[in-house]
Amino acid sequence: MTGPARIQSRADAEALDRADPLSAARDAFKLPPDTIYLVGHSLGPATHTSLQRLQQAAGDEWSNGLVGAWNSAGWIDLAKAVGAKIAPLIGVASDNVLIADSVSVNLFKLAAAALPLSGGEQHIRVEENEFPTDQYIGEALGQLTDHPFRRIAAGTGETEIARGGVLIKSLVNYRTSEVYDMTAHERAARQGNGLIIWDLSHATGIINVDLASAGAKLAVGCTYKYLNGGPGAPAFIYAAPDMAGRLQTPLPGWMGHAAPFDFSRSYTPAEGIQRFAAGTPPILSLSALDGALDVFSGVDIRDIQAKSSALGDLCQRRADAMGINVVDPGQRGGHVCLTHASGYPIVQALAARNIFADFRTPDTIRLGFSPLFLRYVDIWDTMDALKDILRSGSWDQPEFHRRAKVT
Amino acid sequence: MTGPARIQSRADAEALDRADPLSAARDAFKLPPDTIYLVGHSLGPATHTSLQRLQQAAGDEWSNGLVGAWNSAGWIDLAKAVGAKIAPLIGVASDNVLIADSVSVNLFKLAAAALPLSGGEQHIRVEENEFPTDQYIGEALGQLTDHPFRRIAAGTGETEIARGGVLIKSLVNYRTSEVYDMTAHERAARQGNGLIIWDLSHATGIINVDLASAGAKLAVGCTYKYLNGGPGAPAFIYAAPDMAGRLQTPLPGWMGHAAPFDFSRSYTPAEGIQRFAAGTPPILSLSALDGALDVFSGVDIRDIQAKSSALGDLCQRRADAMGINVVDPGQRGGHVCLTHASGYPIVQALAARNIFADFRTPDTIRLGFSPLFLRYVDIWDTMDALKDILRSGSWDQPEFHRRAKVT
Repeated sequence: MTGPARIQSRADAEALDRADPLSAARDAFKLPPDTIYLVGHSLGPATHTSLQRLQQAAGDEWSNGLVGAWNSAGWIDLAKAVGAKIAPLIGVASDNVLIADSVSVNLFKLAAAALPLSGGEQHIRVEENEFPTDQYIGEALGQLTDHPFRRIAAGTGETEIARGGVLIKSLVNYRTSEVYDMTAHERAARQGNGLIIWDLSHATGIINVDLASAGAKLAVGCTYKYLNGGPGAPAFIYAAPDMAGRLQTPLPGWMGHAAPFDFSRSYTPAEGIQRFAAGTPPILSLSALDGALDVFSGVDIRDIQAKSSALGDLCQRRADAMGINVVDPGQRGGHVCLTHASGYPIVQALAARNIFADFRTPDTIRLGFSPLFLRYVDIWDTMDALKDILRSGSWDQPEFHRRAKVT
Repeated sequence: MTGPARIQSRADAEALDRADPLSAARDAFKLPPDTIYLVGHSLGPATHTSLQRLQQAAGDEWSNGLVGAWNSAGWIDLAKAVGAKIAPLIGVASDNVLIADSVSVNLFKLAAAALPLSGGEQHIRVEENEFPTDQYIGEALGQLTDHPFRRIAAGTGETEIARGGVLIKSLVNYRTSEVYDMTAHERAARQGNGLIIWDLSHATGIINVDLASAGAKLAVGCTYKYLNGGPGAPAFIYAAPDMAGRLQTPLPGWMGHAAPFDFSRSYTPAEGIQRFAAGTPPILSLSALDGALDVFSGVDIRDIQAKSSALGDLCQRRADAMGINVVDPGQRGGHVCLTHASGYPIVQALAARNIFADFRTPDTIRLGFSPLFLRYVDIWDTMDALKDILRSGSWDQPEFHRRAKVT
């Protein structure tokens, strides 16, 4: 029997926590007391190291170093240095990841750069159940250029990319938590010289991503979810070393120039992934991310995935027993989705007990299982609370129906 | 006689400082002791309020509010709220400025959106002496679309824009400090339904910019120079209210959607300037900027311009007297450029005395005059130091010739 299947009581959960090799990581986080935070898939919590690193960047490097900190504090190389910390989490060499802009902007950059190098029809394709931005960006690029945009049916990307062009594809679906088969997609892509841009936003830091082994060439991802980089922390961008040098960014800012301080009027791209830098990166947010990533140092991403999976299994098993509908995506990422017609007020009722989940219209309760700060006992208690809320009907109070601006 | 012309001694400078209505603002800044910082045009120094606001965002809003801070701390509206603080500095209504991305990315967004609405040839034009990124972005947009890019001779934008299309134009030249005639350019643009995107990076917070009076429709700008927003602080973007609703962004991210939390697969732009949000903004860097802008509250931008001009005049008059070549741009912005064949080691020799200027290849010493923290006596002392360095030849030491990565 696996770990969570053994858990029949709160005491069983506590015993598993005591034996957990990741348990020490919890101390790295600055969490409010008596809080169970199941929204790490949306915004990861602060770590002490991240806050200290931010304080260092603002209170010392900026305040005392002033503009000289571009040299003395290494700001000029920081976007590459922080990217190098993400590289082992996605299975690539450290020199090929850059922190830059947002996921939206990075998708645009890579898609525009990849299309001319792709085979076949050079269409840009995005499945209709992808995160909205990925669809909007694909569509906008199509409108701006001669490359047609195709919004394709969910699950058909693997077939379609065999015809060439570019596919934007999440490795983990933001809603269902389904994990797709990267190797199979890449195999299909090679049939027609198609190029896949992997959106790793809901995958990085929670499942073992191995881009190089799968033959994946291009990826972007979010850093404020499971990487805990801070609200709106800048995103990452990856291009395989055998391809980066041939990619032409549509957003050639001075930071992506081979010699930015020559102030040359003509653009010469920097080597490798650095060419995808555009403007000056937000150093304070970038420094918080830098510190946040230290919690992954010395931790095996496979242990993270295994515990996250076990926490999710525990949730799923208890939800099943309570008759709550659980979305079963087959291979599951770091979050579990429950569906309930009263999902919104139920999430608010949980929040009133300091248990935080999120809600996605029309009926989805998302529970994220970040195993660096969550314990088995937290999941046990969450499901107890959910059971009580449903049994008592205590979710059906006016204040729990009131809609917040951000849900 | 104007103020600086009266200054014949250090005592005169001190007297002017005592009478200066802006002198109290200096206390808002956290400057290293005994430092004269003349690089506010590149990276403004930290203010106490900025550091406190950053600490609040990281140590409280993020740490305690977690994902709920999107509502409780108002993160979801922060990019508009901070934009509203910049609006009075550029002469527009508060609802029409948004903080987003970088200047590079914002130039791309506005240029792509403006071209289809422009008259005439719909070319995109940038003068050859513009900040390099402005040229690269214009050129890249031309390559990506059907709109030809024209790199035009310095000073010809006003004539060229009368033929229609889009012109990207700095209000203050980053190198020479020349201030261009916005009203005359806009008048020319109207002849051919051309659209000008004003790059206000070297203008905002240091000269009195009045977009509305000049009839200017579109602008972007940097926030980490004279606005002191912190290293790589996100940029601002402006579109006139009579135009914003017709602009279609090429980077439609979920934050620019009319209803981001509906997660609709089709894109509906938000009202007004908000549509130019793309991905999630870097909240920590944005919060530091939020705090930094408080120093402009209750200060008249015309007083800032007047004192900056007076500081620059003092520098120029003493440089003239010392036989140093001063670039004379006619109407001057917030910085003064001196040229000297040994400019680089001279700047290093000044830095060794805790006087910070910057150097631009091949021979330009830039001295920026941010009047909120600089005193007349600082400029007097700087010119004394420069005189001594030149007279003694002390700049000609090996360590002053060593090139840093960032110059």
